[in-house]
Order: sequence, then C-alpha cells, then structure tokens
Amino acid sequence: MRRPSGYENDAAHEVYPDGIHETIAGFLADEGFDPRTATLDEPEHGLTEDVLEDTDVLTWWGHEAHEEVEDEVVERVHEQVLSGMGLLVLHSGHFSKIFKRLMGTTCDLKWRDDGERERLWLVEPGHPIAEGIEESIELPETEMYGEHFDVPAPDTLVFNSWFEGGEVFRSGCCYRRGAGRIFYFRPGHETYPIYHNPEIQKVVANAVSWASPISGPTLSRGHVPESPEKE
Amino acid sequence: MRRPSGYENDAAHEVYPDGIHETIAGFLADEGFDPRTATLDEPEHGLTEDVLEDTDVLTWWGHEAHEEVEDEVVERVHEQVLSGMGLLVLHSGHFSKIFKRLMGTTCDLKWRDDGERERLWLVEPGHPIAEGIEESIELPETEMYGEHFDVPAPDTLVFNSWFEGGEVFRSGCCYRRGAGRIFYFRPGHETYPIYHNPEIQKVVANAVSWASPISGPTLSRGHVPESPEKE
Amino acid sequence: MRRPSGYENDAAHEVYPDGIHETIAGFLADEGFDPRTATLDEPEHGLTEDVLEDTDVLTWWGHEAHEEVEDEVVERVHEQVLSGMGLLVLHSGHFSKIFKRLMGTTCDLKWRDDGERERLWLVEPGHPIAEGIEESIELPETEMYGEHFDVPAPDTLVFNSWFEGGEVFRSGCCYRRGAGRIFYFRPGHETYPIYHNPEIQKVVANAVSWASPISGPTLSRGHVPESPEKE
Amino acid sequence: MRRPSGYENDAAHEVYPDGIHETIAGFLADEGFDPRTATLDEPEHGLTEDVLEDTDVLTWWGHEAHEEVEDEVVERVHEQVLSGMGLLVLHSGHFSKIFKRLMGTTCDLKWRDDGERERLWLVEPGHPIAEGIEESIELPETEMYGEHFDVPAPDTLVFNSWFEGGEVFRSGCCYRRGAGRIFYFRPGHETYPIYHNPEIQKVVANAVSWASPISGPTLSRGHVPESPEKE
Repeated sequence: MRRPSGYENDAAHEVYPDGIHETIAGFLADEGFDPRTATLDEPEHGLTEDVLEDTDVLTWWGHEAHEEVEDEVVERVHEQVLSGMGLLVLHSGHFSKIFKRLMGTTCDLKWRDDGERERLWLVEPGHPIAEGIEESIELPETEMYGEHFDVPAPDTLVFNSWFEGGEVFRSGCCYRRGAGRIFYFRPGHETYPIYHNPEIQKVVANAVSWASPISGPTLSRGHVPESPEKE
Repeated sequence: MRRPSGYENDAAHEVYPDGIHETIAGFLADEGFDPRTATLDEPEHGLTEDVLEDTDVLTWWGHEAHEEVEDEVVERVHEQVLSGMGLLVLHSGHFSKIFKRLMGTTCDLKWRDDGERERLWLVEPGHPIAEGIEESIELPETEMYGEHFDVPAPDTLVFNSWFEGGEVFRSGCCYRRGAGRIFYFRPGHETYPIYHNPEIQKVVANAVSWASPISGPTLSRGHVPESPEKE
Repeated sequence: MRRPSGYENDAAHEVYPDGIHETIAGFLADEGFDPRTATLDEPEHGLTEDVLEDTDVLTWWGHEAHEEVEDEVVERVHEQVLSGMGLLVLHSGHFSKIFKRLMGTTCDLKWRDDGERERLWLVEPGHPIAEGIEESIELPETEMYGEHFDVPAPDTLVFNSWFEGGEVFRSGCCYRRGAGRIFYFRPGHETYPIYHNPEIQKVVANAVSWASPISGPTLSRGHVPESPEKE
Repeated sequence: MRRPSGYENDAAHEVYPDGIHETIAGFLADEGFDPRTATLDEPEHGLTEDVLEDTDVLTWWGHEAHEEVEDEVVERVHEQVLSGMGLLVLHSGHFSKIFKRLMGTTCDLKWRDDGERERLWLVEPGHPIAEGIEESIELPETEMYGEHFDVPAPDTLVFNSWFEGGEVFRSGCCYRRGAGRIFYFRPGHETYPIYHNPEIQKVVANAVSWASPISGPTLSRGHVPESPEKE
C-alpha cells in the first residue's frame, strides 16, 4: 500500500481512508478472526519468517507496485503456502509475484474501468465459501475483468461473474498447492466500495475459514532407502 | 423429433424445414463425417443394438418428448457410452434421460425465451474443441439458460456464456465416464437458426472428433482370484 | 444389515458383535457427533422423510443386499444429497443403488479376498479429511479392491491405496453433487477389524465434518421470466 | 545430456549407447513423427527461438544437471508452452526448472533405486494417451518414485503406479496451462531399458499426439477499452 498521490489515490482515499488493508482487517476482526496487517513499506514488507510462521491465512491485495515486492519475501511466502498456510488473493493481486509463482502462468486477463455492473453467480452451491450467500451477488459499479483469465483451471470454481459490457470471468477460484489452499476472489478495487459490501465481506471471511491449515502429517521426501514392505 | 403442430412448430419448421437432425447431419457430412439419423418415432427410436455397436459418436437433441424415450433404449445407450461411444448432448437435451442418467444429478437450470444475445467465451484456449474458433462466439438471438446448472463440475470447462439479461452459464462442458467422452453444448433451439451458424457447426464437428473412441484395453472386472504378483 | 447365517457371518459376528453400524455409530459418538442408525430390516430402511430431513450426513455401508433397498428410498436419499445432505459411502457400498445413482457409472472394480496388506497413501496432504493422519495408513489384512474403478474422476483424490498383490486403488474420493458432498472411502469389510482402527475412525470422523451441509442459498430454477437486468 | 563418466554412466552408456535422446527420437521417427534433438551442451541448449517456434511438442528428459539449464531458455520454453507448444516431461525431468516453473510447486517426491518392479494401472481407459495399451503395464526393474508427489492435482490422471516396495505414484499426469498441454510420464531411467519397452514407446508417442497444438484463437489481453456490447 503506497502513500496516495494524484486523482486516483484521492478517490481511493475517500473510499478507504485508512487503506484497504485496514478495512479488510476490520471486518475480519468483526467476524471473530485475529487479523494483523503488513504493508509494502515495512521492512521485509512486514512478512518476516516469524510473522509467517505465526500466520494461518495470508490475504494479499496489491496494485501497481507488484514489482517492488522483494523476491526473497515471495519465496518465503511460497514455501509457507506449500507447507499449509492459506492464501487469499484479491482483485488486482492476480498480477502479484506470489500468485504468478504459485499458478505457473501469466495470470493475465482483460480489464476495463468503466464502473460496470457485475453479478457473481454461485456455481458451487454447497461450498463452504458460499455459506450464507444468495445465489448471486450484485455489485453496481466495478472494474471489469474478462476471460481468458490465464490461470490453471481451478480445482473448484465457486463464482462466475457477468459484466454489463459483455464479458464473463471465473471470479472465485479454489486451488490446492502442496499442503496449502489458495482462493482467488476477483471483486475489489481501490475506488469502489466493494470491501464495504456485507456479502463480499462474508465471502472473504468464509474463504479465510476454508483456507485455514489443518494439522497434517510430516511428509518424508527425497531418498527413502528403506521400503515400507521390509520394515 | 415430433411432427410439428401449432405456432412454435411453424417457427421451427421455417428455420429447420427438414428437422434439426437433418441440419446437423448435413453439416457433419460436409465436414467429412459419415452421419446417420435416428428419431423418436422409429422403432427403438432408431437406436437398436446393431446401430449403436456401429456408432462412434451419438449426437442427442431432444425437447418436450424426453419422457417418451424408452428406458430400455436409455440403458442401452448408457452402456455403450461407458464402453467408449462418444456422446454430444445439445441444448434442451440437458433434460434427456440419458444425460441425467450419466450425470447423476437433476441437470436443471434457469431459462427464459426472450431472444437475448449470447456470447460464448472460450476459457480453455488450447482445447481441441476450440480448433479454429475465435475467443468468443456471438449469437444475436437465443433462449437464455442460466446458473445454477445442476451438473457435476465438468472435467473440462471449454465455454462460459454471457447473456444480455444478466445470467451466465457453463455452456461447453466435457465429461469422461467409463471409457466414453461426453460433451454438453448449450447453443441451439428449434426457433433460432443456431445450427446454421458456421462457428457453432465448427464446434459441433470438433466435439465429434474429440469424443471419438480410442482402441482401448479390455478391462477385467469383478473377482480376480490371481494376484499379478503371483503370476 | 442382515441377520447373520453361515461361516462368513460368524466371522463378521466375531469382529462386529453388534453389527458394523453400531461400531461406526460408537466411534462417531466418541468424536462428539450425535449418530443414529438405520438398517435394512426397518420400515423404509429407517430412512423416512422425517429422518432424512433431520440428517446432516448419512453414512452408508451395505453388502450383498443392495438389490433389496427400495427404489423409492434411494430416490429420497438422492434428492436429499442434492439438497445438501452429506453422504459417506463405505467399502462395498460402492455397489449400492444410491452411489451408482449419484455417480452415473457402474462403480465396478476388481476384488480379491485374500487378507492382503493395504497401505493408503495421502495424496492431498492439506485436505480436512487428512487432519491428524500420517502420510500413510497401513492395514495388515484387507479385501483387495483394484483399478479400474468405474467412477467419474473424483473432484478431489485424497487417498491412493497400494495392495500387496500388485494392485492400486483410488480409495478416498471426494465428489460434489448439487449442494451435497460425497466421500467414498474404501477400507472396511465385515470380517476384518478395519473400523476398530483408530486412524480409519479418524478419517471417517473427519469426512463427516467435511461433508456437513452449509447454510446455502435457495436456488431458483426453471422459467425465470424476469431478467435481473430489468428488475 | 552430459558426457558419461564413472560407473553409473557406464551403465547408462550400455543401455542407451547414443543417449536417451537418440532412443526417444528413434522410436518417435518410427511412429511417423519428425523428431529433432537438442542437448545441454549445445548453444542455448539447442532451444533457440527459431527452434521453439518450429516445434509442436517438446520432450524433456534431464537428470542432475537441471541447474545448468539457463534461466533465459527456461523462460522462453515457458512462454512457448503457454502459447500452445506441447511439453512431455519424462521421469527425473520432474525436477527440471521448466516443470517446476509451470507447476508452481516443488515437484518433490520419494525415490529409491533398488530395481523394483513397477506396474502402471490405467485409471482413464478412454483417454487418447491410452490408445492401444493394456489395462496395466509391467516394468520388471525400475527406480521407485513415491507419493506425496508435490504437484497440483492433474487435470486428468491417466496412470497410477504400484511399486514392489510398498509405494504408489501418480505416474501419468495431464495438465493444461495457457494454450499448451503438458504430460508428465514417470517411467524411464538412464540405467534401465525403459525407453526400449514397446508399451512405454506407445504411451510416449500417444502423448506427443495428444499434446500437439491446435490452431486456436488470438486472445486479446490487457486493457480493452471497448465493450463488446457497445461495438
């Protein structure tokens, strides 16, 4: 999250006076989670080894400054996800280094910022991320993201978006990588009050629960000289 | 395919004077396939054991008369699909007995027949069913089908449809069941000239190629008294 | 569960003196669930509409008597699963009417009852069904089930089994159908003490939690005359 | 492929006197393909832009020298795969930079080189990669690879391996990434005559056919100022 400058950031400042990260942390706290924040300008972007070791689910929002994120921190987050930490990637976070690193594709898409109406349709009605949600969520004004979204086919597609201008988008995508779970959720932009929408907040909170790590096994890797049949 | 009667069937007769089945057979023949037709009014609906044994891919279109299809024929087609015969299910065929039998779900959906514009977006750009297709196909007037489409998540989602009125739909869905391959393709209605559209024809022809059976193994089933390790 | 008669049932009686259903209910109660049982010989097999309406997750074990299960009860369970009730299908339940109905395939497989060693390897280490489990579970004596298992490719494959005699099997398979979640879990036989194994009990308990319904939306189906864009 | 030195490479030299690459090129030529080879020691490892532009499917085998592959070449191959070039990754190629880059995970696994028997069971009997193959392939002596294999769940799992010593492995895995298709195939080692086995050769040839690119659409990306609905 950079210090605001110029028109667009004025707009962002009006919608999210304390930054998007504080809004997200705020509603997650209201839902009973214990959120902390970390921003680009902190040393190691606030994502030290100690912090990550102590994190169940990391929520990632970023825009424009993706290239300023240090590769070493990206590798650290990557390892942590494969070890079981959950990861939520929000909106323009599709172009973050960590999401591209985990997906192995360009994560590119179409976009147009005309304040179009979006409707997210639920395609997986029994999924825990859909708990308490209606069959569609309407957002009156959004930045459009359109297919083809260059990601691996999601392990589970939860939401499919319709846009006023004629595009569709796979807007709620679940992935499992290593022992970790990843949810990409499309809605959200710095100049629209998306993260003040109670349904969007509910989805984000559900996704944090869904992505929380289990107490799983230690996996043995590499050379295993003894066959289990000879033990 | 029933004998036409009343207004809707007049409209259908105008668009498909020889029936939808003849239109589909016609363009498949043009693409180099060797199609035959079978209709509801024939004995065993034209789908005798001999006919099915000699069929690589079966294309299924039906509307309104689904209940008149004999269960015995449905079971016969079902066995043939699991043994490797390909199956294309078109438009209102989503409610056919054979599709519901193979999916194990209701295959229900939303619909509205207001002649809305549809745009099919390609979400799997390297798939053989997309050979020669642009990144989207526009159909100026269609019957709308909307989510939630009650089918298993497709093994591969190839097309995602946008509708003028605000809905989306998973409109090109690949399934593998047993040794058979199934493609559900949404476009097509008896009163719109969908099957005269060259891009739709291309998708149907590609899908027939994709669903063609391979020369696969004979699978042993049931009691296998001998362990392969003791052979 | 039929009244025992003959050698095999004597063996079953020794391992599960009160029946497999009571053993499963017992360890689920120990894990904090509130289980009830229903058996073949009860009216409507104990699965009346009231009972099903009041059931979060149904655990299904059956053997030999699959054909005696009434079709009407199968349809009732089927509807309930699509509406959100979880379903665990255990071992020989692969040939139950309800599992075949939901899968749309034959659910056939290879089998050999020679008391072979089985080792279930975890292939999805972060999955909630694997909570508290080691990277493999060893069962010293089992009935073998081998591929090809004629089911749709699971939405998530959690366990993959190795057998002493040379076969493999996809032994922990997650499916979503409608709003319901289904888990097929291979281990278990009436003459081996599989359901007394604490790791197997843990997996079954985890699967019950995983398959529990969410509070999801009411989905509108069929004819929707009003476009959401004209509301 | 490095110049041989020491015992292991003597063994490799005996089994593959001209190198594994020449053996693979040889049987692919026999199957009617037009293969070329490229090795580590060539400038740009033989994978110049011109060569890649002119390649339909790239087959990748590597061992030990993965780190010596230039990052620039890896990025070039990566882009080419996302643009539609097919990629076959063989055996120890699981640790190649390109496979790890595309998967986004560690691609780690268990291994033991005791010359164990392996049996690959077909789990997707109608898949084009299984054309002409029996329901299992037996390899009398192999290096064992065991789960957990740290890759994304394959889009399609074609083969599942059993090993004498007690492990299983997802040994034939299909992935779609961008417009490209990737097949990971486990068998093969420099000191066993795996690539001389006619069934293995058949699978590799089938996979080359399966992974061949289609003539797909040009996808528009990034900013799309015009809505298709306003065109």
